[in-house]
Amino acid sequence: MLKDLIAKNRTYRRFYQEEKITEEMLMEWIELARLTSSGRNIQALRYILVTEKDQQEKVYKNIRWAAGLKDWDGPEEGEKPSAYLVMVLDTAITKGCFWDHGLAAQSILLGAVEAGYGGCQFGAIDKPGLMKDMGIDERYEIQMVIALGKPKEIVVLEELDEDGNLGYWRDDEAVHHVPKRKLEDLIIK
Amino acid sequence: MLKDLIAKNRTYRRFYQEEKITEEMLMEWIELARLTSSGRNIQALRYILVTEKDQQEKVYKNIRWAAGLKDWDGPEEGEKPSAYLVMVLDTAITKGCFWDHGLAAQSILLGAVEAGYGGCQFGAIDKPGLMKDMGIDERYEIQMVIALGKPKEIVVLEELDEDGNLGYWRDDEAVHHVPKRKLEDLIIK
Repeated sequence: MLKDLIAKNRTYRRFYQEEKITEEMLMEWIELARLTSSGRNIQALRYILVTEKDQQEKVYKNIRWAAGLKDWDGPEEGEKPSAYLVMVLDTAITKGCFWDHGLAAQSILLGAVEAGYGGCQFGAIDKPGLMKDMGIDERYEIQMVIALGKPKEIVVLEELDEDGNLGYWRDDEAVHHVPKRKLEDLIIK
Repeated sequence: MLKDLIAKNRTYRRFYQEEKITEEMLMEWIELARLTSSGRNIQALRYILVTEKDQQEKVYKNIRWAAGLKDWDGPEEGEKPSAYLVMVLDTAITKGCFWDHGLAAQSILLGAVEAGYGGCQFGAIDKPGLMKDMGIDERYEIQMVIALGKPKEIVVLEELDEDGNLGYWRDDEAVHHVPKRKLEDLIIK
């Protein structure tokens, strides 16, 4: 059922790094993005598949992990993602893609979760750095990075506390807690 | 299976208008958006549920239907959506929501499809007009409109022709055709 899949699709930041993700697996998830709707049907998003270790390191060093976890700079060796997707916009086709990147990312991540994997979306990217390190043609504009792997952490949704704090946290057993607003608070009457 | 659901989640613009969509149904789909990840976990999207006829007309007149269909201004009475969601950003919380709106929209639409419904996303909105007609507080910024209903049309995905035309079209039997790029064309090597 869709709701179970969406509930299971949490942001994961620590992985069983030894679990390989192949280009074929990434292609299956991108196929889901291909079948997803696109504003004006322009379909201008493109993907760079990152499965090789040296390329992965180029991505790793140019993204910022979990701004909300002050004492943690990202997963250590052994818990890093098994693959990345760099999602870019082909600016030769269009300068803006509405919210296509969000639609596509949700399809890709739900596909990964259904297959027993999970991921993390990054907007905090050193884009010039990543463009340079990976030799990405300037025709392409980086939209996001998606890290993917077999999750090695438990993520639990919590109700907001009385003060309405949105900050996520890790407990002593490294379980990751994410406060979520109530459904009724999302509705404008 | 997720892929079937995503493939079935096409953009529908004609509906069995007499098929009611209740606020409770809309709430179930918004619950899917609530469980969807949010950049910096800020959860600043809000929803206005539009199920009453007079409110629906206010939405209908402020959105532009299918720019790609030159001879069609939108569904006629009897084929209009059964409900709308107006998705807004609470600017008192944040001025930007990354691609949260796309993630949320995909969850909502997949939920609707799973329940036997379908929808259409609108970015082409007379936002000042809709804000005024619906009396939306200026604290909220309209992100998109999602029209929802029981689809009354068949939508078929096609391969791009040799010229790479992306334009969708309706055939003589009112079947809607949407050209899609090939998977390999979405990959940057």
